[in-house]
This record gives sequence, C-alpha cells and structure tokens, in this order.
Amino acid sequence: MNVKKVLEEYKEGNLSADEAEKQLRLDYIQTIENHTLFDKSRFNRKGIPEIVFGEGKSPVKTAEIACRAESDIVLISRASPEHYSAVHDRIPEARYAEDAKMIIIGEFPEPTGLIGILAAGTSDIQYAEEARIVAAAMGVRSITSYDVGIAAFHRFLDPLKNMLDENVDAIIVAAGMEGALASVVSSFSNVPVIGLPTAVGYGFGGEGETALRSMLQSCSLGIAAVNIGNGVGAGAFAAMISLRCRRPHDEL
Amino acid sequence: MNVKKVLEEYKEGNLSADEAEKQLRLDYIQTIENHTLFDKSRFNRKGIPEIVFGEGKSPVKTAEIACRAESDIVLISRASPEHYSAVHDRIPEARYAEDAKMIIIGEFPEPTGLIGILAAGTSDIQYAEEARIVAAAMGVRSITSYDVGIAAFHRFLDPLKNMLDENVDAIIVAAGMEGALASVVSSFSNVPVIGLPTAVGYGFGGEGETALRSMLQSCSLGIAAVNIGNGVGAGAFAAMISLRCRRPHDEL
Amino acid sequence: MNVKKVLEEYKEGNLSADEAEKQLRLDYIQTIENHTLFDKSRFNRKGIPEIVFGEGKSPVKTAEIACRAESDIVLISRASPEHYSAVHDRIPEARYAEDAKMIIIGEFPEPTGLIGILAAGTSDIQYAEEARIVAAAMGVRSITSYDVGIAAFHRFLDPLKNMLDENVDAIIVAAGMEGALASVVSSFSNVPVIGLPTAVGYGFGGEGETALRSMLQSCSLGIAAVNIGNGVGAGAFAAMISLRCRRPHDEL
Amino acid sequence: MNVKKVLEEYKEGNLSADEAEKQLRLDYIQTIENHTLFDKSRFNRKGIPEIVFGEGKSPVKTAEIACRAESDIVLISRASPEHYSAVHDRIPEARYAEDAKMIIIGEFPEPTGLIGILAAGTSDIQYAEEARIVAAAMGVRSITSYDVGIAAFHRFLDPLKNMLDENVDAIIVAAGMEGALASVVSSFSNVPVIGLPTAVGYGFGGEGETALRSMLQSCSLGIAAVNIGNGVGAGAFAAMISLRCRRPHDEL
Amino acid sequence: MNVKKVLEEYKEGNLSADEAEKQLRLDYIQTIENHTLFDKSRFNRKGIPEIVFGEGKSPVKTAEIACRAESDIVLISRASPEHYSAVHDRIPEARYAEDAKMIIIGEFPEPTGLIGILAAGTSDIQYAEEARIVAAAMGVRSITSYDVGIAAFHRFLDPLKNMLDENVDAIIVAAGMEGALASVVSSFSNVPVIGLPTAVGYGFGGEGETALRSMLQSCSLGIAAVNIGNGVGAGAFAAMISLRCRRPHDEL
Amino acid sequence: MNVKKVLEEYKEGNLSADEAEKQLRLDYIQTIENHTLFDKSRFNRKGIPEIVFGEGKSPVKTAEIACRAESDIVLISRASPEHYSAVHDRIPEARYAEDAKMIIIGEFPEPTGLIGILAAGTSDIQYAEEARIVAAAMGVRSITSYDVGIAAFHRFLDPLKNMLDENVDAIIVAAGMEGALASVVSSFSNVPVIGLPTAVGYGFGGEGETALRSMLQSCSLGIAAVNIGNGVGAGAFAAMISLRCRRPHDEL
Amino acid sequence: MNVKKVLEEYKEGNLSADEAEKQLRLDYIQTIENHTLFDKSRFNRKGIPEIVFGEGKSPVKTAEIACRAESDIVLISRASPEHYSAVHDRIPEARYAEDAKMIIIGEFPEPTGLIGILAAGTSDIQYAEEARIVAAAMGVRSITSYDVGIAAFHRFLDPLKNMLDENVDAIIVAAGMEGALASVVSSFSNVPVIGLPTAVGYGFGGEGETALRSMLQSCSLGIAAVNIGNGVGAGAFAAMISLRCRRPHDEL
Amino acid sequence: MNVKKVLEEYKEGNLSADEAEKQLRLDYIQTIENHTLFDKSRFNRKGIPEIVFGEGKSPVKTAEIACRAESDIVLISRASPEHYSAVHDRIPEARYAEDAKMIIIGEFPEPTGLIGILAAGTSDIQYAEEARIVAAAMGVRSITSYDVGIAAFHRFLDPLKNMLDENVDAIIVAAGMEGALASVVSSFSNVPVIGLPTAVGYGFGGEGETALRSMLQSCSLGIAAVNIGNGVGAGAFAAMISLRCRRPHDEL
Repeated sequence: MNVKKVLEEYKEGNLSADEAEKQLRLDYIQTIENHTLFDKSRFNRKGIPEIVFGEGKSPVKTAEIACRAESDIVLISRASPEHYSAVHDRIPEARYAEDAKMIIIGEFPEPTGLIGILAAGTSDIQYAEEARIVAAAMGVRSITSYDVGIAAFHRFLDPLKNMLDENVDAIIVAAGMEGALASVVSSFSNVPVIGLPTAVGYGFGGEGETALRSMLQSCSLGIAAVNIGNGVGAGAFAAMISLRCRRPHDEL
Repeated sequence: MNVKKVLEEYKEGNLSADEAEKQLRLDYIQTIENHTLFDKSRFNRKGIPEIVFGEGKSPVKTAEIACRAESDIVLISRASPEHYSAVHDRIPEARYAEDAKMIIIGEFPEPTGLIGILAAGTSDIQYAEEARIVAAAMGVRSITSYDVGIAAFHRFLDPLKNMLDENVDAIIVAAGMEGALASVVSSFSNVPVIGLPTAVGYGFGGEGETALRSMLQSCSLGIAAVNIGNGVGAGAFAAMISLRCRRPHDEL
Repeated sequence: MNVKKVLEEYKEGNLSADEAEKQLRLDYIQTIENHTLFDKSRFNRKGIPEIVFGEGKSPVKTAEIACRAESDIVLISRASPEHYSAVHDRIPEARYAEDAKMIIIGEFPEPTGLIGILAAGTSDIQYAEEARIVAAAMGVRSITSYDVGIAAFHRFLDPLKNMLDENVDAIIVAAGMEGALASVVSSFSNVPVIGLPTAVGYGFGGEGETALRSMLQSCSLGIAAVNIGNGVGAGAFAAMISLRCRRPHDEL
Repeated sequence: MNVKKVLEEYKEGNLSADEAEKQLRLDYIQTIENHTLFDKSRFNRKGIPEIVFGEGKSPVKTAEIACRAESDIVLISRASPEHYSAVHDRIPEARYAEDAKMIIIGEFPEPTGLIGILAAGTSDIQYAEEARIVAAAMGVRSITSYDVGIAAFHRFLDPLKNMLDENVDAIIVAAGMEGALASVVSSFSNVPVIGLPTAVGYGFGGEGETALRSMLQSCSLGIAAVNIGNGVGAGAFAAMISLRCRRPHDEL
Repeated sequence: MNVKKVLEEYKEGNLSADEAEKQLRLDYIQTIENHTLFDKSRFNRKGIPEIVFGEGKSPVKTAEIACRAESDIVLISRASPEHYSAVHDRIPEARYAEDAKMIIIGEFPEPTGLIGILAAGTSDIQYAEEARIVAAAMGVRSITSYDVGIAAFHRFLDPLKNMLDENVDAIIVAAGMEGALASVVSSFSNVPVIGLPTAVGYGFGGEGETALRSMLQSCSLGIAAVNIGNGVGAGAFAAMISLRCRRPHDEL
Repeated sequence: MNVKKVLEEYKEGNLSADEAEKQLRLDYIQTIENHTLFDKSRFNRKGIPEIVFGEGKSPVKTAEIACRAESDIVLISRASPEHYSAVHDRIPEARYAEDAKMIIIGEFPEPTGLIGILAAGTSDIQYAEEARIVAAAMGVRSITSYDVGIAAFHRFLDPLKNMLDENVDAIIVAAGMEGALASVVSSFSNVPVIGLPTAVGYGFGGEGETALRSMLQSCSLGIAAVNIGNGVGAGAFAAMISLRCRRPHDEL
Repeated sequence: MNVKKVLEEYKEGNLSADEAEKQLRLDYIQTIENHTLFDKSRFNRKGIPEIVFGEGKSPVKTAEIACRAESDIVLISRASPEHYSAVHDRIPEARYAEDAKMIIIGEFPEPTGLIGILAAGTSDIQYAEEARIVAAAMGVRSITSYDVGIAAFHRFLDPLKNMLDENVDAIIVAAGMEGALASVVSSFSNVPVIGLPTAVGYGFGGEGETALRSMLQSCSLGIAAVNIGNGVGAGAFAAMISLRCRRPHDEL
Repeated sequence: MNVKKVLEEYKEGNLSADEAEKQLRLDYIQTIENHTLFDKSRFNRKGIPEIVFGEGKSPVKTAEIACRAESDIVLISRASPEHYSAVHDRIPEARYAEDAKMIIIGEFPEPTGLIGILAAGTSDIQYAEEARIVAAAMGVRSITSYDVGIAAFHRFLDPLKNMLDENVDAIIVAAGMEGALASVVSSFSNVPVIGLPTAVGYGFGGEGETALRSMLQSCSLGIAAVNIGNGVGAGAFAAMISLRCRRPHDEL
C-alpha cells in the first residue's frame, strides 16, 4: 500500500515533508482508481459484465478482445455467426445466442432478481433477447412474452397479468412502430416500465424514432426510455433495479 | 346559356364555323366552372360549407369576409371573442361556439349521418369540437366523449362500445402526447378511424409531431390521419364518409 | 361455453357464490377475446385478411408463417420471388402478384364495394397495387389509372371523370415527388381522398416526406393520409369505407 | 356487487341462462375497472398522487379541478402565483412551492424511500424540484445537490459521494446544455441514473435536445431518460424504484 | 483616375519604377471595386436598388440608414407603420406600400420588362407584393392575380392564360400550405416559374417548409425556388430575367 | 375536328340544341389537351425533350421505354453502362455521355442560346454535365468551368470573367460542401444565378443540404435554387431563360 | 496545507498509520480542487473571467450574483438596460457595453494578445462585440471590422489584409445567412479562423443553422466553429490561442 | 515582372496611357494570385499539404491525381488498400497508414509544434490518426492516448495530465456517442480544445450528431468543433495553432 509506505519513509526521515507531499499528490492520480468512488466492491455490486459491441469489428479482432478480457463473464453483442466461429475457435466454451445475436462466455450467476420483458412484434425479439441475456448475466431472471403488440390488443393482457402476479421488479417493453405498448402496459401496471424502442417500422418515423418519442411523450407516469435498439442498456438498467430490490439493503 | 346562344347564332349564319369554334373554345376557359368535374350538384353533395380561417385576420376584416360570403352556412374557425364581437355587430344571428373557437352563421341541416369523436385530454377538446361543428354543418351528428386518454385506460371503453353499438360510420380520435389512443381504438373497432393529432405535449416531440407519427405508424389497419390540429379537415373527412354511407347510392 | 357452465354449476350448488364470482372474474381475462368489443362477427365484417410483412423475413420463415395462418385469405406483402418460391413449395395454390410484390393465398370474395386508385408515376404503381389487392381481398373492386401525374396535367382528367361517374366511394392517390396530385384530385372530387405518399423523389425531401407533408397540408378539404409507402393501409382504409357504404346498415 | 346479484337472480329463476350470460357480459365492460389489472390496492401501491398540469389552464378552471379532485394529495405543476391565489381562495390549506412552480394540497406520507437529485445549473433547479416534490408526495425523501455541473467538475464529487454513502436507490440528474453530467455520474455510481434533460442552452440543440440525446447515447450503462423538462415523470419513476426497494416484497 | 496619374508621375520621373509598381499594387486593393468584375455599368444594369431589411431595426435607426443611402431608389422591407412614420419625418417623399409592408423612396423607372405574379391565398399577398415592388423598382411591370389557389382550381386558369397571352418573361408563384400551385402553373406554362414559398400553413410542415419542398421536388421542369418568404429575392430574380429578355443583347 | 362537326350536325338538324350542348361539354374533357393552355406550338417552344429517369429501372425496361418514346430527342438520366448496352442493342444511334451518366437519342438543334456552368469540385461535374446536356438538347450552348471551388479562390475568377464577357444569359453553379460559390458568383455577376446543390460533403449536413440551404439563404440577390442533384432541372430552367432572351419576342 | 499537517501529526504519533491514510484518502476528495489538474496557477493562466448569463434572470437576482462574485473581473452577458440599472445601483463602477449587451465589472489587463474579428452584417455585431469584450477581459486586443459581408465582396478585402499585416493570431468571423464569409476569409488567410454563426436570416435555415452548417462543411481547411450566437465562447477560444502564442512558453 | 515592363513600355512611348491602363487592369485578373493576400510565402507558412479525398474515387484515378500533384507532401485520405496498391505501383515511396486509412507521399518536416490527441473509443482512432498524420505533415508532433472514454472515467486522467505537463498547444478530442469527453477535458485544461465528433453510436443521434451537438453546447469555455469525422480539419486547425505558438512572431 503506497500511502503507508510514504508515511513510513517520511517518519523515518527518508523523505522530506515536500517530497512526501509531492509523492502523495502524484499518488492522487495513480490511485484515483482506488478512490472510494470507484471502489471495487461497489463496482462489483453494479454487476454489469464486460460487453463488447461486435458490429463493425472483424471476427479476428473480436476473438482477440474476447481472449484478453479479464472479466468472468464476457458478452459480445451484435455478433454474426462469423464472429462466433472465430471466437469459438479460441474459446471453445463460448456459446452463441442466435436470437439475440450474442456470444456468451462464462457461467451466469444463480438468479436472485426478477423482471418482465414484453416484445410487441417478432422483429423486436432480438432486442428483447439482448436485454434478457444481459439481465441473466447479472443474476436476474426474466419472464418474457413476445409478439404481443396492441393491434391484437387482448394478446398481451394475460402475459402482463402473469408478470404482475409473479411480482417482477420492472418491465421492459420492446416495441417499434408507434410504440404504444409501453404506454398501455404502464397504465395497467404498478412497476417501473423501461421503454426499449426498436428500429421497426416504415416510411416517416419508421427507424424507431416514433417509438422513442411515444415512450418519452407518454401520458402515463412510470416510464423511462433507453435509446433505439439499446437492449443491452435496457437489460442492465432493469437488472440494477431488481438486484437493488431483492438484496438486503445492508449489502448494497 | 352561352353554348346554345353560339349554336343559335351559328345556325342563323351570324357566326362562321371558325368564329363559332373559337367562341366555343374560349368558352372552355370561361365556363370551366360549369365543367362536369365542377358541376354544382356534385359539389353541393360534397356539402362542405364555406370555412374562413380567422387566426391572423383582424376582426374587422373577418366581419367583412363573413358579410361577403354567398354560402348559406359560414364557419369562422380559430376565432377569438373579438372576432365574434365584430362579426356579431354586422350579422346579429351569428353564434359563437366557445369550446371550438368558432363563429357559426346559418342554420345546420337535419342530421342524416352519424360519427363518433373521442378526445384524449381536455386540451384536445377544441379540435374535437371543431370537427363536431364542421360535421354538424354538413348534416352529420356526432357522439362525443372527451378526456378519455389511455393513461386511465378503462375510461374510454364504455364510450367506445356505445359508439360502435350506435353504428357510427367513422370515429375521429383527437389526441396529443404519444397519440396511442388512435391505435388502441382502431384495434377495438371495425369502422374507419381518423387520427386527429393535436399540439399537446412538452419537450421533445411535444408540438403534436409524436401524435402524428404514431397515427401514421400505427400497427393497426384502418387508420388515416389529418394534420396536427386540423379539426376542420377531420370533421369534413368523417362527415363525407358518413353521408356517403347513409344516402341512397343513386342520389350520390 | 364457460359462462353458462359456471351458472349451471352454481345453480346446482357445485360452486359457492364466491367461487362462482371468482370463476367468472377469471373468465374476464380468459374470455376477453370474446368480449363484445372483439366479437368475431364484428371483427369479420371489418374483413381485413391476415397480412404478413415479408421484407426482412427469410423465405423459409415466411413459408412457415403462411402455413400456420388460420385465416382463409393470407397476403404476404413486400415479398420477393424467393419468398414466393418458398411459399409455393408448401402451398401450391399460392399466387404471386409481381407488380405489388405480394403473395396471395386463398380466393377473394365477390366484390361488393368500389373505389378508385390513381398513381402519379410508374414508380408509384407498386404501392397502388398493394392497395388494390388488399381491397380486392376485402371484397372491393378498384378502378385504377396509373402514370397520371400533374406534370402532364390533362392525363388524369379523363380517368378521374370516369371514377366519379362510376360512383367510387373513395379515391386513393399514390404519389411521390411533391405529391400535388392528391390536392388536385380532391379539389375536383366529392369523395374522400386517401393520400398515399410514396418514397419517390430525390435530393431534399425525396424519400416521400414531401409528398406526405403536401397531403397533410392540403388546401383542399376531404383528404386524409396514410404513412409513406403504406399501400396496405390505404387499401384497407378505403375498402372499409366502401363496404360500409355499400352494405345495408342493419348488416353492419 | 353485480355478479352475485345476477347469480342469485339466475338461481332463483328470474333470469334465463341467456339473459344471465348477456348480463354478465355487459358486466365485463361495466366492471372492467374492477379487473385485477386495475385493482385498487395495486393501483394504490403505485402511489402516484393526482397531478394536474397547470400551464395553459386559467386560474379559475385550475381551482375548480383542484376542488373536484378526490385524491388525498393533489399536485398542480407549472402553476403561476395567479394559479396559486385562485386555488388558495377555495382551498386555504394549499401551499405553493415557488422553486418548483407547484401547488401542493394534502399532507405527504412519512418518507420510507430515498433517492438523490443532482441539478447541473441554476436553471435546472425548477425541474429537479418538481421531481423532489412528486417523490415526497409518494413517500420518498430526496438528497439534493444543485448547481454542480461538470464545467467546475470537482463540485459534484462530494455531493455524489454523500448520496452513494447514504445508499440512495436511484439518482436523478437534471441537466441542460450538453447534459454530460448524467454520463459522468453514472460512470461513478452503482445505482440506476434517471436522466432528466432540461430546455437549458442556446443556439443549435439548445432547447434540451442535446441533453436528451446525450443521455440516450451515453457510453455508460445504467441510464434511462425521461422527456425534456419532465421533472414529474422523473420523480415518479425514481420514487417507484425506491418504494419497491424499501418495502417488504410480500407487501408489493 | 489613379492609374493614369501614376503612369504620368512615373513617366515624369517623380516616381521610381519600384515606387510606381508598389503604388499600382496597392491600387489593386483600393480599386478592386473598379475591377471589370465589379464595373459600375455592369452593376448598374443589374439594376437592383438598395434594399434595407426593416424588421428588428428601430424606426429611428431605419430612418438614419435611409438618409445615408446614396442610391436613387431605396426600399425598406418588412417595415411597420412606425418605421414609416420615422422615415417620413425625415424624407417627406417616402411612400408606404401597406400590403407589402414596404417603404419606397425615389421614383421608379419606366417599365421595360414584364412578369406575372400569382398568389395562392390572401396571406401570400404580402410576399407577392414585395416581389412586385422590387421588380417595379427595377423597371419591370407585373401582371398580378391573387387568391387563386388550387383548392378552387378553376380560379387561376383565366389569370394564367392572360399572363401567357401577354407574353410575360417569368411567373412568380407565391404559395404556402402544400405549395402545389407552382407545379400546376409550370405544367401549364412555357416560361420559367419562380417558386416563392410562404410561411402559411399549420401543424406539421406549416411554416412554409412544405411549400418549399414541393417547389424543389416538383415533377414539372422549369421551376426554381427562393427561400420561404423571400419576396424580395423572387422579384429581383424574375426582373433580372425579364430585363435580359427585353433589352437588345448588345446593351447587356 | 370535333367542334365543327357538331356545329354542322346541329345546323343540319341532326342534333337538338340540348344534344349539341351535351356533345360539346363532353368535348371539353376530351379536347382539353387541345386547350390553348396546352397548345402544341407553345409546348414545343418550351422545348424540353423527353427525359427518362433511369435509376431504379431495369436496363430492359429502360430500353423499352426509349423505343416507345415519340419525341425526336430522348434523354435517359442516371443511366449505367448496363442501361446503355440494353438501349444501344435496340437503338444503335444512342450515345452514352459517361460523365453525365446520360444516354442520348436524337440530334440536338443548332444552339441559339448561351449559358455558363461552374462546378466547384470534381464530384460536382456529373450534375453540371447533366445540366449541360439538357440545355444542349434544348438548343443552348454552355461555357463550362469545373473544379473551381472557393477554397482556391482565385481559380474561378478568370472563368467567370470569361462567361460574363461572352454575355451568358444565366449561370448555373453546381456546388456541394458549404455551397458558398453560388453566393460569391452572384456577388460578382449581373446575370441570374441558378444554384444547383450537390450531395457532396461529409458529416453533419453533408448530403447536400448545407449547399441547398446556403443557396436559399444567400446574402446576394439574383439567386434561385433547384433541388439537390437536380442537374436536369437546372439545365432546363437556365435554357428556358436563354431561349427567351435570344429569340425575337414575337416568336415566343 | 492539509497534507503536511497530517504528515506532521503522524510523525509525532498523534495519528496511527490507518488514521493517517484514511485522512489522506478523504483529503483526495476534499482537495481534489488542489489537484495538479486544477491547480490555481494553471487555471489562472487560462484567464477566462467569471461570466454570468443574464438572459432569463431577473435584474435583482443578477445584481445579487454580481455582488457575490469573487473574481476581479465579472461579465454579465445578454444583459438588458434593466439588468444594468439594478447592477449599477449596487456596484457603481459597473459599465454597460450596449452593443454587446454586456455589463462589465472590474478593470481589464493590459493587452498582450491580438486577434481579428469580422462581422458580416449589422445584426452580427452584437455577437462580435461579445467576443471582443471577453477577449479584452482576458488581455487580448481585437482589430474589428463590421458589416463586411460577401454580397459586397470587395468590402472585406482591405480589413482582412490589415488584420493579416498586423499579424493577428486568430480571426473570428461572425456571420448569419449562408455564413460563406468564414470560408472565404479562411481561403485568403494563414491563421486559424473561428466561425461564429449568428441567428441572422429568414425562412428555411434562418435561425443560424445554415451559417453553422456552412462553417462545419467548409471546403477550406483551418476553420473550427462554436455554437450559434456563442460570442462568449468564440472570444474565449480565440484569446486562449493568442495568449499561448504571445507568451514565452516557459511561462505557460 | 509584368508591371515594370508596362511602365517601361509606357515611358518609352510604346504604349499610350489608355493602353497601359488597360494592360494594367487586365493584369489585375492575371496576377491576382500574386496579390499579397495570396502571396506564396504566407501561404506556405500555413503549411497545409495537398490532401486528396480518396473515398469515391477509383484507385486508378487516385493514382493519377497523386502523380500530377506538385506539392512535396501529398496525403490521400479515406484510402483503401486498393487505392494504396494503385498509387504504390506508380509512386514506390508512397506509404500506407492503415489505422488512418491514409496514403502518404513525401517526407514530413522535423516537428516544431506539439499537440495532444485523445480518442474516446477504439472506433474513434481512425479519425484521431487522420488528425495526427495531417499535423505531422505540417511539422507538429502529437501526444496521443486512445480508448480513454468517460465510462471508465479514470482512464483519461493520467494521459491528460501528461499532455498538460508536456505543454501541448491544443488538444483534439475525438469522440462519438454522447461526446462528453470534450467537455470534461476542457473543464480540466487551460489549452484550446478542438472537438472532433465521430459517427460512432447507434439509434437516435448515433451518426455523430449527438457528439457534435454536445461539443457545440458545452458548458465549458475553450472548445470549438469541426464537422463529424473531419480528422483532417481538426489536425490542420490544431497544427496551425501550435506552429503559430512555437515560431518567433517575426517569422509569421
């Protein structure tokens, strides 16, 4: 431990007061990562694994990054089969979650949290699955129900009731098009709803912007949103809520 | 009648064939308003009264225009009390519909059509009322239900069921914020839904654009939209549908 | 039938009042799809067939969905020849409408309704055809006239006159570029005009947004718009109007 | 209780099975607000008080709405001193929170939850205070620290450390301009961060859109955002998280 | 004339070659306004008078600028009656064109050019009049026809025919809303059409952007556009065309 | 000739006055293309050849359209070598202008007009060449100077001086990036400048929108703009000006 | 000095090693403002005075903030005469720079730096003056030349030559409209050009966005931009460059 | 030297005064590139090498341009390996900087300037390297530190301290996503910060626009921005600052 050594050296007269001070100041910079704000145990309780964005990286480079990672769990998002093949060659235990387009390395913890995930259409499933896997990697189980958009309104009532009865701590709603499902779910629920707009749609406002706007502009209180297609962010945010709710507060 | 006169003159030898043709050709331009495309009876069946946009016009100028109008029914939209006062001075039978901010001159026909109008919030009522009055002026009665947004979801189910049971020919949904009510109503209905986005909201997408986008991007089939705040257009469009549905087709 | 069974059981004393009530309440959720709002006969009169969006789905997956569909008529929109080939392998009676890029499964009903469809340019035809086929699947015949944009103004006057003389119940105007055709047609007509903006154009505002804006901002009353390229929505909306106009109101 | 009465009547033979079923089906609609999805106790645990948006409503109308409210706690947001004066005349116990521009009616519950609220600049305080009061009305105490933007970076480190040491369940970051504070706080924290962009700034992107985008586009995981200026929504969302974390799960 | 003087001085030995060269080089900068590119006679044939933008300037300051102007003709655009009053106090011969909101100082030349100006609605007249006055100040007469929008289609056919028969050299079309009039006029004409979009409209795209986009995106060849509300620019551009057409080319 | 025949028949008593009138009215529609507004000789003086937009059309379909065209001159814009090959197979005299990506069929008239075309960068040349060829097809010669952007400011001064000395009737300025060249050229010239923004640039505003905005927002009077990349429109517009300037007015 | 005291106490045995370390770690947070990154002398060399944004603050509140300020020089930007009056009452030596709408408190240092400031139009002067005063407060003199836009191109050549001859270290170009002046100045100069777009203009892109885009999209290298209307930021940035250029590097 | 020759000829009577003047005027145009504004030595001190934008140019064409260049140093940006291969064939000493996607021809000068370059993520490195190479070509060395985004906040403190201690004259911050790093670095520094937004991100605002807006909207003074992805511009701008700071002022 640096600080104590400096103190010792100073006490023993090996360092002048000026030199000791300078040494300690330099230490500010060098040890700022040990700063209470960054302390390991707090960071670890945040529990988000290392996540690499695969899109735009070559399979070879992605595999290299995966090998270098020091974290127990590594997720590679937006990964193609080619990415997986390159990673699998070097890390045989790597698994590929096709729906989420994610490569998973490492074993997930026993789930202690519980959230719900609804996806409005089949094209929203990829983002919902991203969220589910990130949450799982953080120790949070998800009750999922996909293809439950409001056009066939009654389809989502049963799954939603089930989630509420199971006492989920948050509900992620992945929806493109007009994204109205988030508002409707929130008007029926007493848990925080995380809007996850997806780039599903066509024509004017079809790249997910309409869904995002709807979630931000919702008449119903109890909604916050992540960016379009940010399944990773939605999963991490919901899992943080659930872990906080399920763990004794003196452990936080 | 021009054409016959020309024919007569030609027959009687007062006009050469060339002159007659030229006369008739000129007549094309002069009488193009008598053209079958524009013929009076068809135009009249369209039945839209003369509508003056009051906003931005001075009360005095508005009153002048109202006096000059040759139509039996004249509506002045976006009219302030000052507009009304100036109009009323010169046309004592003019009435002021405060909620719709409309001045009404002339008697409305007996209603033969029927539509429904839903407004999501209290601030949407002005536009809903604009639509109701325009429809009324065209001979279409409206069943209205206001302040029925999806945040208190159950509130609009009864009114909607009533409209469907009464067999309305179209439903106008006036909504701001995320405008999800239009999608939800359409998913429950078998009549054309006319989305009327309103400039209600705040922050990003709060000037009605989110509501408009939602209505255009709806997952539910059976919706078309008018521009933000275009209550006049929504009312006229819905009324045209209902009149067409209610009148014997040989009268169309 | 659930409800009657519960009544029976209750009457016979097999269920207490509390248990019967609970059973009936649960039934609310389970049978909400039998709810009068959703009742089959009303839904069926809406008459919109099952429509699958093919774009972005693999041919194999699309064929699977088509096989699973329970509807008599199934349409697959934005379908490539590859989609068709995969579907045709499993459903030999499937047909491919090349202009509309649609796969059609099932026989269409005898037409009872009538609408008009105008397309401004050759590139707008795909969307016009989408609308025509959806309407046909709902039992509505279309009078079509394509490549009649306002640059060669006189070209659309004859077809329009024909549509009006044939007494169409609504006119769909598919147009890209500045989309002015919708306004012009509406100024000449006494039927509801449904603006169908298409992603035809170039440079600033060329993805169909200019056409959409023009249709929303039209000086002429009697226009509502669907989203850019939403031929399916335009066809369904226009057909709903025509069916409502042509059928005896006591059947609605 | 409707259902039981129908059961009784049926059992006693006053109703036929058909009539009873019809009665019960109608009851679906009438009692859908008693549906488990809407059940009072669950809704009440959501605990969000009635909140009226004062802006754009006349003082007189606002006072009327306040009188009619059936909720124990009523908040009127975006309220001017004139609004307050009109409300106070009729409800003498109403209080005015000047910083938040909110009128408060009713007593707040003992706080059981705890959140943190940071505001980057003095102009962000109004929105932070909106959030604080909504949370307080829901039984959640806030540790606040205002005017701590990143331009004088070191200013927010102490307050943030304090919030983390006090074990807040969520941190709201109200920020305009480039909104970078939310990212920075999240990179230092292990609790969910709720981005509250404010319409503070100038020139290109100065209406809060830059702050909103920054919060959606953050490099740091653990952030979700509400709309620009939506202090009410941020407060309600954060309070819902904290209540869920602090209450025994069998009470939820 | 500088150059000759330098030549003289050099010849007479009063200047060394070096000094003469330096003098002449300095002269490059000082006399660049005499440069053939800027030569007076060419600039004068451009014939655009001095135009001051009054909006946002105080009446007093505006009057000062008007007094200082060295041009024979001075126009002050976007001028209020207050501006006029201040200018008139100091320049009694100044006139106020109320429709155009323009103050005019100086006598206009005898018109030698001829253009047409159409305005779609009454609110477009201000911009059309701006154009007319600028053209008049440049010696170009305008045939004008206002309130001739396409909603009442037939209204503009006669005026347009008249303009074409009178052989105008260009037609300015001032239009807001969907701006379709420019396309329609161009499809009927064989002269250059200058689109002058105006900030007339409402809701989405109502600040003139829809009209501008329509004019840029027109299906009809032969249109160019100026910025929204730029009546001054449209008038100057059209007048430049007409002057060029009407004057013998050896005078250009 | 229809009209005369009707007159004849009427005169001879084969038609009643009513029947003759009806016949003539029908004739309005049928002969509206002979209307003076559309009269052939005027349309021909407009002189714009038939132009087919090749992009997005298959080579085969493009060749078919080219064969069907009745115009003496046909241009196919945005044509690839594949387009050319298909056209050339069926129309051996077709030529390919590679720089402009245009296929040319037919002989151009002797030039009677004269315009200037400046292109700021090498990537702007394609659009400048489009303009040049369209103008040539209309009988207007172009003085061109390419790669003369303002970054190397002095490069365009000589070419511009040459154009002005040659007495061009209009100058097209094709420019991407910040598009400042149009303003600079206009400040140096006394001829109408047609801004042709191109989709050249990068990052924010790089798709040509910055160039378009600059041309609309120019401080210099005497500029109008066409849409981004609309070389065809710029060429046609400039050529119409020049033809009008060069031809005796009694021929117009 | 904290650190030395701790060292002393530790040496003297008043603190254990653990306590000393904890004290020093706490000190990290408390003294992070003494961190070398923030060290006073470096910060002071940055030399930017305290600047208060007056707009939207009441005169009374502004005066209070001015009194509380500890800096030798305080600037209040976007200040009205009312602001000044309130400040002057409490700080009699405060001065008001009317053109810049700035209140100045304190004496400016002797200028050691030198920059140039060009403003394209009279409406740009306010922002140019903001920049000039901020630079002056930092010890940098400005050579200014206003109303030198490119429409009268030759007007800015002399002033620019003068600035370059005086060897300015940076040139700020304040321009609205199409903002082309920045590109033109940069193409003529060998010093860094700071683009200061202003909200001057009209119609599409008239709020300064066109000028901003032009400066970002410039063909000429050597330009960077600040936000629209950010005269304060432009002045501070340019002054930082000049101070760095003019001071001996060992003083930096 | 032209001018002297004319003077001579005039003095000797070989030229009349008129002819001499005309000759000298023509000389204005021909020699404007020798104008002091453009004088070679000043331009050379600007020291920016010739930079060719490779993207969108064929390898063959790019090689040709490289051969034709007269500059000692030529850089080809956005160059692919195919570009390099074609250039290398003709210019064997050409080198390829893979990270920057740049081809380099010629030897760089000994560095006399010094700047710092930070890149937030690995995807920002390309743009940072572009800047580094352009600066190197101008004689300015860069201290670089890549992958130091604020999500792992502490990572950039050491590199930044190092840059400040080394006394860099400017710091370029390349960042995508929310671009907050630029604000944070500026709040810690006393040197000009040049924001270089990159098109890194996803969903709403992910093409670099959020980063650009953040840099323009920064709370911290001392930042100016270049366009998204404009590494070349950032490098040239920063290098111009450093060269100016490091060279004796009498050499400028």
